[in-house]
Amino acid sequence: MDSDSFKDFAKEMAEYITNYLENIRDRRVLPTVEPGYMKPLLPSQAPQSPENWKDIMTDIERVIMPGVTHWHSPKFHAYFPTAQSYPGIVADMLSGAIACIGFTWISSPACTELEVIMLDWLGKMLDLPKEFLASSGGKGGGVIQGTASEATLVALLGAKARKIRQVKEQHPDWTDNEIVGKLVAYSSCQAHSSVERAGLLGGVKFRLLEVDSKNKLRGETVAEAIRKDKEQGLIPFYVVGTLGTTNSCAFDRVDEIGVVANRENIWLHIDAAYAGSAFICPEFRYLMKGTELADSFNFNPHKWMLVTFDCSAMWLKDPTYVINAFNVDPLYLKHDMQGSAPDYRHWQIPLGRRFRSLKLWFVLRLYGVENLQRHIRKHVAQAHEFEALVLADPRFEIVAEVVLGLVCFRLKGSNDINENLLKKINGAGNIHLVPSKINDVYFLRFAVCSRFSESKDIQNSWKEIKLRADEVLEEQSVSK
Amino acid sequence: MDSDSFKDFAKEMAEYITNYLENIRDRRVLPTVEPGYMKPLLPSQAPQSPENWKDIMTDIERVIMPGVTHWHSPKFHAYFPTAQSYPGIVADMLSGAIACIGFTWISSPACTELEVIMLDWLGKMLDLPKEFLASSGGKGGGVIQGTASEATLVALLGAKARKIRQVKEQHPDWTDNEIVGKLVAYSSCQAHSSVERAGLLGGVKFRLLEVDSKNKLRGETVAEAIRKDKEQGLIPFYVVGTLGTTNSCAFDRVDEIGVVANRENIWLHIDAAYAGSAFICPEFRYLMKGTELADSFNFNPHKWMLVTFDCSAMWLKDPTYVINAFNVDPLYLKHDMQGSAPDYRHWQIPLGRRFRSLKLWFVLRLYGVENLQRHIRKHVAQAHEFEALVLADPRFEIVAEVVLGLVCFRLKGSNDINENLLKKINGAGNIHLVPSKINDVYFLRFAVCSRFSESKDIQNSWKEIKLRADEVLEEQSVSK
Repeated sequence: MDSDSFKDFAKEMAEYITNYLENIRDRRVLPTVEPGYMKPLLPSQAPQSPENWKDIMTDIERVIMPGVTHWHSPKFHAYFPTAQSYPGIVADMLSGAIACIGFTWISSPACTELEVIMLDWLGKMLDLPKEFLASSGGKGGGVIQGTASEATLVALLGAKARKIRQVKEQHPDWTDNEIVGKLVAYSSCQAHSSVERAGLLGGVKFRLLEVDSKNKLRGETVAEAIRKDKEQGLIPFYVVGTLGTTNSCAFDRVDEIGVVANRENIWLHIDAAYAGSAFICPEFRYLMKGTELADSFNFNPHKWMLVTFDCSAMWLKDPTYVINAFNVDPLYLKHDMQGSAPDYRHWQIPLGRRFRSLKLWFVLRLYGVENLQRHIRKHVAQAHEFEALVLADPRFEIVAEVVLGLVCFRLKGSNDINENLLKKINGAGNIHLVPSKINDVYFLRFAVCSRFSESKDIQNSWKEIKLRADEVLEEQSVSK
Repeated sequence: MDSDSFKDFAKEMAEYITNYLENIRDRRVLPTVEPGYMKPLLPSQAPQSPENWKDIMTDIERVIMPGVTHWHSPKFHAYFPTAQSYPGIVADMLSGAIACIGFTWISSPACTELEVIMLDWLGKMLDLPKEFLASSGGKGGGVIQGTASEATLVALLGAKARKIRQVKEQHPDWTDNEIVGKLVAYSSCQAHSSVERAGLLGGVKFRLLEVDSKNKLRGETVAEAIRKDKEQGLIPFYVVGTLGTTNSCAFDRVDEIGVVANRENIWLHIDAAYAGSAFICPEFRYLMKGTELADSFNFNPHKWMLVTFDCSAMWLKDPTYVINAFNVDPLYLKHDMQGSAPDYRHWQIPLGRRFRSLKLWFVLRLYGVENLQRHIRKHVAQAHEFEALVLADPRFEIVAEVVLGLVCFRLKGSNDINENLLKKINGAGNIHLVPSKINDVYFLRFAVCSRFSESKDIQNSWKEIKLRADEVLEEQSVSK
């Protein structure tokens, strides 16, 4: 493809993208296709000769769009938001053109340096304790991971390396394997599935601890679990505090957990994957109280801050343990400047890395902090608008405090009736929600997700839910 | 940013990108900046109010480009190639607009289904054994990982899960931790650093085995290591065969290793990160002999097949063990179609995943197999052209057989003189190479990397190397 064709192709794609996004409301949010739908639509092998880019443009509506779940539709209320913005797309064009692999400083100094600076900008926007910022001149600093799951795993592996070293100082005769067999990590039973998975991947025991009546993990619960495990000769080494759980957007008391973790010399990692973006608004920072006690902090600008996936921001007060845990240093990756700037390959699981900080740079500059704050506040207001609609209908109940952009609600009554309700909602496909369950109570999660979301969308989504509730309740009364 | 500004911005960026790439030869391939160069060029915090996108365009040359190592310059001969192409950039625009997170089939069926089909197209292009292909109707199939390092780790974790289960059948009283303490994995001492790192991450013993005079790992070496380890009560479970090592593009004898691995019930993973792309040309497929004996196979279209990073293709004959090793299945990720299509989140370390198969689709269709083959063959021919230049100069020697696009060479004489030569070459910054060392012999690696590379570039790079060699040899004779 020559440069002129590329320019035509990119122009047509930009046109397609704006048409798609500006009219996304008109599409059925959930596709109706069955598994295997695409196979008959495509040849069984790659073409020998080049095709025309116009054929691809045609095939987007024929092959791809019928199978797309439209995450950026204002009718999409599933999971949590994922980010999408025009500046993010253009930043990725530049990233794809420079296409450097930023594993070391020398492999593209701009890629490393912009990341250091953007993580400082971002850390300041959240008012993170300065020990986390590279600009503070200490050991601390930030890094872009692909996902929060990777951040949780990286922190766990750093914590594991730190604890093994500490234990060996006291027990030089113990093998690594003996020590690993005793290691135990903790999180709330409400933590994201990827937290438990990090334990599986890291090969250590992981305890999912009980929460209080507001679904928060408390310091004394952690302290008690540690006490019991130490009695049995085990070695507590890592605890994850979640700010904004996926189930119900609950906030662990990291201020309490942090005190325990610091006292017991246990690594505290904070997973604020979704909620972290809200901390750019001062009025929500009370939710991150205790962050100064943590060893690592992570949130996803690719969720709620309009930076296209993937861009998971992680800060470490002292990255030494993570760096040393992974450090394999062959000659072909060495360079003269080692030590004077981060070689980010030591901070992550993969070796290669894209120039992702460009997305942060473009989004932060082209929105400005004030518009990003506005985006957060608008979503939170819309969640409260939806909450009020639910509360005004006596058939429904709210099952968890609405703090940010998630509303957890259900029909009063059995789990079955709520499962039916969700099945009807997703079956109709006009809006999309996913469920969750806490203490065997099944409920529906309504997340405000789209950057196009307006009050009228909230009203329409509620109308759709009420309609499906009418149907479910009607059927129930008939079958009685 | 509204849709009209986006279209203007994207158009200007496409213009910038073509100017950058079509004239990339004119830029110094290695930047001259020092660590910390960027800090004074940028404000210390994000702007409160939005800026104009034109300011960003201006800042690309002021802030970013001075610190870019130009990986796509024909003067770049370091590491291995990384991919970059116009179709890849446009595909990422669409991916960034749809911006779905394809962790389950339902989260965007098109994202999963196009990936299944593209991995089949790609597998057929390489003539992979059909057990690896989803279209064969068996258990096998492909997945896009971020990097080869992740593929190596995923395979290791699958192998670990499989072996633990097998051992437990024989020794139900052994704990997981006891078994893990006995597990041992193998690769060539020439394997990529990420292979050894996978052992660190996976918490298992990893042996880097000796190679033959052509830097190939042989079957009997693996068999002997296994024999010794079993004598000591250890449990061999995983071996990585490398096709195209980073050090010297050597090819392990996976045909021999596979026989041993199959006999000993050990998982064989093939890492063909760089060389795999060459197998789309039938004349290079002799190098992958024995692939039918492997459990998993990986190569990086994002290296040498013009699919922009990240796109690392991995196939598994039986993904069950990998899926089960990682499986954590919360309600909010469940869906009705589970089991009838892959839920790729179980196949990888992170939870989230982008719509990366679009890049494959665009590149394969817009180049066609014949142009991708031409790209590979051109680079191999240019490597041989460079090899001939080296061989014609009696001061130099070739240190490893030139098979694909990498030439390993050195000045006859000490390591010191070669280190000086490389320092001079990279110091001048007209071309960029990195070194390696095998058996204490330091040498220079000349990789043909750029899709813009022409015969004249090879000739110019050689001229530059000869010039720096003249300087080094001159200085040496003066100092004597």
